[in-house]
Amino acid sequence: MEIIQKLKEHTAIVLPEQGLEQQLAIAAKEQRPLIIKLGFDPTAPDLHLGHAVVLKKLRQFQQLGHQVVIVVGDFTARIGDPTGKNKSRKPLSTAEVQANAATYVAQLGKLIDVHKARIVFNGSWLDRMSPSDMVQVMSQVTVAQLLQRNDFNNRFTSNTPIALHELVYPVLQGFDSVQIRADIEMGGTDQLFNCTMGRQLQETMGQAPQTVLCMPLLKGLDGKEKMSKSLHNTIGLTDAPELMFAKTMSIPDELIPEWLQLVTDFSISEQEALRGRMQVGENPMLIKKCIAANIVTQYHDAGAAEGAAAHFARQFQQRDPEQKEWTPVSLKDLAQTPQVSLQLLDLCHKLKGKLSRTDIRRLIESGAVQLDHQKITDVHSVVTIAPGMKLRIGKRDFFELC
Amino acid sequence: MEIIQKLKEHTAIVLPEQGLEQQLAIAAKEQRPLIIKLGFDPTAPDLHLGHAVVLKKLRQFQQLGHQVVIVVGDFTARIGDPTGKNKSRKPLSTAEVQANAATYVAQLGKLIDVHKARIVFNGSWLDRMSPSDMVQVMSQVTVAQLLQRNDFNNRFTSNTPIALHELVYPVLQGFDSVQIRADIEMGGTDQLFNCTMGRQLQETMGQAPQTVLCMPLLKGLDGKEKMSKSLHNTIGLTDAPELMFAKTMSIPDELIPEWLQLVTDFSISEQEALRGRMQVGENPMLIKKCIAANIVTQYHDAGAAEGAAAHFARQFQQRDPEQKEWTPVSLKDLAQTPQVSLQLLDLCHKLKGKLSRTDIRRLIESGAVQLDHQKITDVHSVVTIAPGMKLRIGKRDFFELC
Repeated sequence: MEIIQKLKEHTAIVLPEQGLEQQLAIAAKEQRPLIIKLGFDPTAPDLHLGHAVVLKKLRQFQQLGHQVVIVVGDFTARIGDPTGKNKSRKPLSTAEVQANAATYVAQLGKLIDVHKARIVFNGSWLDRMSPSDMVQVMSQVTVAQLLQRNDFNNRFTSNTPIALHELVYPVLQGFDSVQIRADIEMGGTDQLFNCTMGRQLQETMGQAPQTVLCMPLLKGLDGKEKMSKSLHNTIGLTDAPELMFAKTMSIPDELIPEWLQLVTDFSISEQEALRGRMQVGENPMLIKKCIAANIVTQYHDAGAAEGAAAHFARQFQQRDPEQKEWTPVSLKDLAQTPQVSLQLLDLCHKLKGKLSRTDIRRLIESGAVQLDHQKITDVHSVVTIAPGMKLRIGKRDFFELC
Repeated sequence: MEIIQKLKEHTAIVLPEQGLEQQLAIAAKEQRPLIIKLGFDPTAPDLHLGHAVVLKKLRQFQQLGHQVVIVVGDFTARIGDPTGKNKSRKPLSTAEVQANAATYVAQLGKLIDVHKARIVFNGSWLDRMSPSDMVQVMSQVTVAQLLQRNDFNNRFTSNTPIALHELVYPVLQGFDSVQIRADIEMGGTDQLFNCTMGRQLQETMGQAPQTVLCMPLLKGLDGKEKMSKSLHNTIGLTDAPELMFAKTMSIPDELIPEWLQLVTDFSISEQEALRGRMQVGENPMLIKKCIAANIVTQYHDAGAAEGAAAHFARQFQQRDPEQKEWTPVSLKDLAQTPQVSLQLLDLCHKLKGKLSRTDIRRLIESGAVQLDHQKITDVHSVVTIAPGMKLRIGKRDFFELC
């Protein structure tokens, strides 16, 4: 009973409701480990704290002796988007898929025991399907059902084209569950639809349908959107200790309760104690320091956490004469490399996307933009990007590149 | 110019409008025959006069030296309907497909030179496609576009399930055009959507898109619905001369102009002369006799036509003391075999579907039903089916089984 409680902790969706109890009962009865599936899209190998929410749950299953199976979606990654409309979906070569999978497995190692997990490539069965097998699989699903998926539904009702092959991808993802005979499929709540495809295909193909277990989507550094690489609001699992620490310090205070729960490994009572301190009026920045240290300890170690905290204090607090907090911005998140030159105007625009170029031009001309504590008033200035560079835009925005 | 006129004669749709002129110009310039595609569904090998409308147009192309390619859709026929919902689409074995194709080719021989035509099976390329090739082909077409096809649209808007593989079939049919590099695809107007798929796929795959040439759908013996085996309103190309003749005599008079055009091979002036005779008040039955004789001559010979006319006169006109015309009904069309016993009530219901069973029961009890000129008043009577059997139902309906 305690096990069930622990496994259900923080889950957003368990489908069917009693699915976890049922699967555990089956495992006990048949004296075998459960097969826990997690799909991985090899076009996006950079893992962040959002992924970690799911991976930590996976770790719980693994620690209970169950079999984790990571399904690398190389089949679709190698095809990409044949319509060429989706530029983020350009086809990957087999070598690229392999490299991305290796990067991914290395990051997985921070959270689960990769030696005990099975890593399989869905191309190994999908590439071998005959055309008539594919038709058979497609016949198990209706068009109306597929168009219920949120993104398809939105596009269909707004007359944004959906190519036929896009409907096929979730069906193939479901077929992966049949192939590995998954008992449980894990994912974020945004994967609910695709995971239910697995249930359906298993059922029509004579298997017991898997239980779907979705974790909540972690909010990113901005405190608004889900953590996502494309939104530049992530903390990467391989980010350096200093960057991890500084990024954590930049989250809005409202995020603290959610991050305590989903990101830290504080015990329930430790979490309660920290929330208690906030309630009695303690500066949220101190709580964030605890969270930041906890995160760095998880993904690096306690020494690194101490070092990062000291670095943060030096860099962002003591050194600044006005006691301003400088928001750290990683070059990676800006999609920039050191030593590249670009217009000051463009750099400001990247950092403060909400301001129009005209606004920024006015700020520069009025002397409200400072680079490394020097006013720059020439709107045509070109700057050479470097970590440590400090940029002040207007009265309230202080950025430090790192 | 005369050739174009002849080729356009009786066509319902030419897409694009100038497509025929363009294709003929290309053929002339490149000094090669055009490739004229006709798809054949090997689940339905029985050809009738409706098919002949398309085949006669195909014959014109063949007589001009163009290359007819018959694409046997064995790929989908062998898969059938995996959902099992469509009972008319049960999977065929390779042997069944071969047998049906042979039957089909034999019937084709009545209208085109089968030795000059190429007969290809689409399984020979579809079965060899890799799963990623299939995804590529599917990516060329949008879901919204497929749902525009009449039957899909009706089902989608009425929430009748459409399985995903059903959307794939027309796309594969279009891919056949790419494979055989079709210049022109022919079909009835009900094939327009599928034929335009071929245009689209050829274009996205770097070929000049085929011209689509659709013939009108011939009305069947009932004068209402299109001629179709499932509606039991056909004249089969292999029907015996007597049956062909008698069935033709049973068409409603309003059908005469359409049949003169699409079914007979009377010249334009001969057709005009026959229409003229009707306009000056001649009995339409005499015009129908001319049509019937013409049809029998086409599919058998002039001698057979003469024999069938004489047989018809003996059987249906002279012998009947009341000079009633007995409507011939073939056992095949009733889906019956000789010597099978069935309830009189059921037989009447098959012949007069518009009457309810209660109506028929009343007619029998009131003595209004005669079997071979004998009143039958027992509603539980059982009859043994035999050709030549005459059944009178009420005052106006006279049927003869043949």
